[in-house]
Amino acid sequence: MKHTKVKDLLNSTKTLHEVNAKGWVRTFRNNQFIALNDGSTIHNIQCVVDFENTPEETLKRITTGAAVSVTGELVESKGAGQKFEIQVKKLEILGDSDAEKFPMQPKKHSLEFLRANAHLRVRTNAFGAIMRVRSVLSFAVHNYFQERGFVYVNTPVITGADAEGAGEMFQVTSLPLDNLPKNEEGTIDYSKDFFGKHTNLTVSGQLEGETFAMALGQIYTFGPTFRAENSNTSRHLAEFWMIEPEVAFNNLDDNMDLAEDFIQYVIKYTMDKCQDDLKFLEGRLLEEEKSKPQAERSEMSLLEKLNFVLENNFKRVSYTEAIDILRDSTPNKKKKFQYIINEWGADLQSEHERYLVEKHFKCPVILFDYPANIKAFYMRLNEDGKTVRAMDILFPGIGEIVGGSQREERYDVLVEKMKALGIDEEELWWYLDTRRFGSAVHSGFGLGFERLVLFVTGMTNIRDVIPFPRTPMNAEF
Amino acid sequence: MKHTKVKDLLNSTKTLHEVNAKGWVRTFRNNQFIALNDGSTIHNIQCVVDFENTPEETLKRITTGAAVSVTGELVESKGAGQKFEIQVKKLEILGDSDAEKFPMQPKKHSLEFLRANAHLRVRTNAFGAIMRVRSVLSFAVHNYFQERGFVYVNTPVITGADAEGAGEMFQVTSLPLDNLPKNEEGTIDYSKDFFGKHTNLTVSGQLEGETFAMALGQIYTFGPTFRAENSNTSRHLAEFWMIEPEVAFNNLDDNMDLAEDFIQYVIKYTMDKCQDDLKFLEGRLLEEEKSKPQAERSEMSLLEKLNFVLENNFKRVSYTEAIDILRDSTPNKKKKFQYIINEWGADLQSEHERYLVEKHFKCPVILFDYPANIKAFYMRLNEDGKTVRAMDILFPGIGEIVGGSQREERYDVLVEKMKALGIDEEELWWYLDTRRFGSAVHSGFGLGFERLVLFVTGMTNIRDVIPFPRTPMNAEF
Repeated sequence: MKHTKVKDLLNSTKTLHEVNAKGWVRTFRNNQFIALNDGSTIHNIQCVVDFENTPEETLKRITTGAAVSVTGELVESKGAGQKFEIQVKKLEILGDSDAEKFPMQPKKHSLEFLRANAHLRVRTNAFGAIMRVRSVLSFAVHNYFQERGFVYVNTPVITGADAEGAGEMFQVTSLPLDNLPKNEEGTIDYSKDFFGKHTNLTVSGQLEGETFAMALGQIYTFGPTFRAENSNTSRHLAEFWMIEPEVAFNNLDDNMDLAEDFIQYVIKYTMDKCQDDLKFLEGRLLEEEKSKPQAERSEMSLLEKLNFVLENNFKRVSYTEAIDILRDSTPNKKKKFQYIINEWGADLQSEHERYLVEKHFKCPVILFDYPANIKAFYMRLNEDGKTVRAMDILFPGIGEIVGGSQREERYDVLVEKMKALGIDEEELWWYLDTRRFGSAVHSGFGLGFERLVLFVTGMTNIRDVIPFPRTPMNAEF
Repeated sequence: MKHTKVKDLLNSTKTLHEVNAKGWVRTFRNNQFIALNDGSTIHNIQCVVDFENTPEETLKRITTGAAVSVTGELVESKGAGQKFEIQVKKLEILGDSDAEKFPMQPKKHSLEFLRANAHLRVRTNAFGAIMRVRSVLSFAVHNYFQERGFVYVNTPVITGADAEGAGEMFQVTSLPLDNLPKNEEGTIDYSKDFFGKHTNLTVSGQLEGETFAMALGQIYTFGPTFRAENSNTSRHLAEFWMIEPEVAFNNLDDNMDLAEDFIQYVIKYTMDKCQDDLKFLEGRLLEEEKSKPQAERSEMSLLEKLNFVLENNFKRVSYTEAIDILRDSTPNKKKKFQYIINEWGADLQSEHERYLVEKHFKCPVILFDYPANIKAFYMRLNEDGKTVRAMDILFPGIGEIVGGSQREERYDVLVEKMKALGIDEEELWWYLDTRRFGSAVHSGFGLGFERLVLFVTGMTNIRDVIPFPRTPMNAEF
């Protein structure tokens, strides 16, 4: 008979004469009670084994991690915590798991240990929950944009352009590194490489995305992006997924509205669909914080924090206002900041962003109108001639989660800026074409998906919210 | 006032006193009629300009490709082909487009020319339609799996494993190629590379996906994959998007059922949502085929072909049966095949697949139970000891669209196979763990997304169904 998912069995509206479930043993107590999980839900189904009529040999093989198939009656459970359980009539061991060797013991493991076993950590409650939440969040992203008529665009991962300057890039090549072809000048002959030129992994799909927005109106990307930066922090990955909507005719205010509405939608959607997983993760966070000093613990529980974001508008603050607040702040005056804010024009560090979000405003903040010289070349210059229509969204505990801008739609201004920064116009001929032919006001932003997953799951290290993290010195699996 | 999308204006249920539309001029006839498109639909909205009261200077700037904002009354159209049009009261040129220089003239361009202008081709009817269909097909993929409780898994793009052997790989590095670090033996010192080892771009997320399926039950990937193969054909890309579901406890029959149901669902979904675009693409294909000899034209129109796939089961044929059919076929006997089929064990070429699908069965075909030695190491060995539980789905005009298998779940058999093929067990320790701990029957497949888009749009070159194709010697944009 076809097996039924544990989730569906637990959600059954009635007892059932015969059901089959397949999954993995989480625990086996008293030679009688199997806690069986198949990944469809955080909850296990209790399977009661008739141990008196089960061969000793079989009982011994019911170990943590073993794959089993159980057939029996779905009955109301007498135990606490579950409505139904299976009275097992037939049990089959599908795949053994040596209890001595299986790394995922039914006990608490450190997150470091689990990272080293990323292929198995997803068999734990926490990582099962995280990966289900991540999946639902992804779907919420697509749902949001598709419902509103945005076109999903797969911008290229391998790129010949390296002008954007969003960060250090990985090189992609099919040349033999131990026998590189050289040209007459003795330098590497990239005309022999697969693409006939030097290529990298993309740091952003924005520039290509803009060309599509200027044809299809509203587009979004959602794909992997890369940074070859040696940042061994809990907030950085070398490979991460980014969401980049781009909308023709949107100005910066429209862009802020879109970003805020989008974030609130996907969080709401996920809270609706993942109640059990989020409740579990809330408990996990509470437990984790018990080991921290009181001052470092969150004021709100995970679900309170998520609800707070849904129920409160993001505070919109200009860079200039932010600088005033920071300059007058206690940590600045007492020189507690590593980087003291003295004057307008300073680039904001993580410590400043955190102060604004966590101490001053105590809510998500949208900073906008930054000094032109600390932002990218494609951002729309304001009439003041010194600020650009940039925005960053800062979240408590996470820092920057969104970076975006209204784009410079004026050909002459854009070219002048590129010249000043030494960006090759020839290389970006196609990007400039969007300003040559039917240019218009347009805006977009990039949201680092893993930072959003961090926020929603209450995890604190970004390596714990992606299946197989890529970080300096680590490309295992 | 906020602008309204052209799609919504055309679908209006009533006339409206004042509306604003923004978009790009497709054509401007008689100094009076603007065909305006904003990418929300294949259809343009006709905007009737009051040319007697519009300055000559402005009229001159209404050129193909220009971005304009029109405000006026939405009235019933007297012209054929549209229900509504805009009587323009106010017109603003947002961005000019020099009629002499704009590459997308209102005439027929060759597909080659359009590929060289991939950043602008999306402003044409055909490519607007293709990209909207591609987007809706993507969403259909997510919808199908999410509705059924599959977990979306982002497997890594950068991988340290290169054992799968699905094809040539691109190398990823942050080492300076003109100054490579060497170790004592004089070979490249990869311990100095970003990840501390040699890394490549993934050719498949399957192996990582399997580890998640053996925890979460049902998973799917949908992400970019890469082949560094010098295949300059209309069916190959160096960078393409692949969908890879993997399901614990599914055998090969379940796998075939899943693949067939999935393909039919996404096609049906897209036909429902993209009627106008598909109708346009059907006409395009008809037009294109007029230039071909009668014998090469399709027997069915695009929509007939799509309906045919929905209404007919895929024909399931074992490799052994297929060989018998091919051996007895006219092209084999008359030596019309480039590769003559003489005996069981031969690898099938594209010409054989096409014969089976297009001439013999005239419907999608699932071939299964292939000889073990022409298939990958991870496929489940049948009891006959010489075939494996592999399946390929072949589509008319496209060839192989799906490759999948039941996976070898037996640790000993798998290790023996890896040894025989010289695949490093140490490198795949994590993959082998799925067979060490709680192994079970499981199956999955990979579907090349662009081939599906080819089929659904009726395009014939895979470079025309991805925004910015990556092929040998081409990584522009």
